[in-house]
Amino acid sequence: MKSFNEIRNQISVELEKLNWQKEPHGLYEPIAYVLSIGGKRIRPALTLMACNLFSDDLQSSVAPALGIEVFHNFTLLHDDIMDKADIRRGLPTVHKKWNDNTAILSGDVMLIVAYQLMAQTPQPYLKEVLELFSKTAAEICEGQQYDVDYEVRSKVGAEEYIEMIRLKTAVLLGCALKTGAIIGNASPQDAQLLYEVGINLGLAFQLKDDLLDVYGDEATFGKKIGGDILCNKKTYLLIQALERAEGEDKIRLNGFLESKTLGDEQKINSVTLMYSQLGVRKICEDKLCYFYEKAIANLEKISVADNKKQELRKLAEKLMSRNE
Amino acid sequence: MKSFNEIRNQISVELEKLNWQKEPHGLYEPIAYVLSIGGKRIRPALTLMACNLFSDDLQSSVAPALGIEVFHNFTLLHDDIMDKADIRRGLPTVHKKWNDNTAILSGDVMLIVAYQLMAQTPQPYLKEVLELFSKTAAEICEGQQYDVDYEVRSKVGAEEYIEMIRLKTAVLLGCALKTGAIIGNASPQDAQLLYEVGINLGLAFQLKDDLLDVYGDEATFGKKIGGDILCNKKTYLLIQALERAEGEDKIRLNGFLESKTLGDEQKINSVTLMYSQLGVRKICEDKLCYFYEKAIANLEKISVADNKKQELRKLAEKLMSRNE
Repeated sequence: MKSFNEIRNQISVELEKLNWQKEPHGLYEPIAYVLSIGGKRIRPALTLMACNLFSDDLQSSVAPALGIEVFHNFTLLHDDIMDKADIRRGLPTVHKKWNDNTAILSGDVMLIVAYQLMAQTPQPYLKEVLELFSKTAAEICEGQQYDVDYEVRSKVGAEEYIEMIRLKTAVLLGCALKTGAIIGNASPQDAQLLYEVGINLGLAFQLKDDLLDVYGDEATFGKKIGGDILCNKKTYLLIQALERAEGEDKIRLNGFLESKTLGDEQKINSVTLMYSQLGVRKICEDKLCYFYEKAIANLEKISVADNKKQELRKLAEKLMSRNE
Repeated sequence: MKSFNEIRNQISVELEKLNWQKEPHGLYEPIAYVLSIGGKRIRPALTLMACNLFSDDLQSSVAPALGIEVFHNFTLLHDDIMDKADIRRGLPTVHKKWNDNTAILSGDVMLIVAYQLMAQTPQPYLKEVLELFSKTAAEICEGQQYDVDYEVRSKVGAEEYIEMIRLKTAVLLGCALKTGAIIGNASPQDAQLLYEVGINLGLAFQLKDDLLDVYGDEATFGKKIGGDILCNKKTYLLIQALERAEGEDKIRLNGFLESKTLGDEQKINSVTLMYSQLGVRKICEDKLCYFYEKAIANLEKISVADNKKQELRKLAEKLMSRNE
């Protein structure tokens, strides 16, 4: 069994081998840029780790693993245009460093390259892997559309939010794990269990993000605390708060959200205090635990020796205890 | 053998069957819109016609044919954002009717759906068809990038222009034909000959477009004559004119291009007159004929009975004699 760190190093080495020194330079340079500024490479690592549960030969899952990482970075490129996000991982986003057109077109090529990598899946698994990948890719676009829709909607239910983050975030983790399982020749049952591990881990992962934005440590979190609060982002915390606040509380919470005079610090502190009073931090943490435990329970059901699961267990734990 | 019209009707019926009545509505409605406003469906027709040269069973090439059409419309969606084009086929473009974000995201899903359709290629041909499709898709993005690059470059050579339109326009016709040939179980030689038919037809097709913009009949052309001249678009005509004009002519031509005081009619008439004087209409028509004849010559070399090629010959002729 390879450790997460060994696998992540392998991913880095393989990613470096992709050649972007091609013409036209204006098309490929932004791709090299966005892939060079990092990220945790969790998704491709999940593919190799899932494969490694069932097989010692990881070579055939390398290209699809890279395909999933290139696809993930494609979604960031296009999402950043739509969200008008100027900074990603501490550096200017592609549409900021170049322009919108470049981000659109270089993103399109990344999606095509992702498919080229997925298509290197060995023949017996090709059709199944491609179908899973396309289904997942379409779902992620659907999730992004719901995210955009919900931004301008006055009321979003907690269930709707969970479904949105399932599509936008969780299905790619499920796809990454299941792809590795398929190529490792796992049974359909085990492959599906790994998909469920990914879904539940992804949901917990996003709830962790929501929590970190409010309760994270600014020094290690990497971005300013309270960003979601300042832009009234409908996170799980805010949705639960809006559902639970009554009477005076409701009026005060809406007042904070609509206020044009409140300073940034004041708004963050006031809303955070309301979250505590309404108990929504606890609700969010409980929900996170619920998904996390479901992920682990599914992992336990997979029919491979217990010690082989140790690396995935450790990674899941690490993702949940992260403070960045 | 099916006629072009029969095949085109079949494409229409099959395209109608694709289901876009899905949630989120905001994501899928623009796709239904862009596919409903038509287009000549030449590319998917080419796929079925190429398949029909070698096989009477066209069913397995229907999904990939639709994939190529959905892909083509995806490129229009994203190109129209980049080119800030407000009208396409007489109706508002998606980014105009909705907004840029919608056009980006709905376009992304179209690219994914295109791959889902391509992936329905029967197993023995799947890998080859997918590789050809991905290569073609990447080349089309490269062509679009060159097009964008050339817009701001002062000098573009005639050879560079031909290479740009090969990538941007011709390779998809080549891909459409070759895909049909592969699924029809053609020999590699015949499949490659059909690819060359598509490339040369595509180049002739684009030169025809350049000519129609200047010498077309406004009533049938569907858009205003001289649009390319007004925005100094580096078409084959302008590139040749700039290469050929000398002395006085050169000064006058550059004057027309840079003038801020010339009225639209005046500018169109003056530049058109220069094209005649410099003989570039003839040069462009000769080049068109050269590619057209190359396309036909490649078609003749294909090892199937001559009468089977009649429909493709007729279609090629129709594309060249069109005035819209």
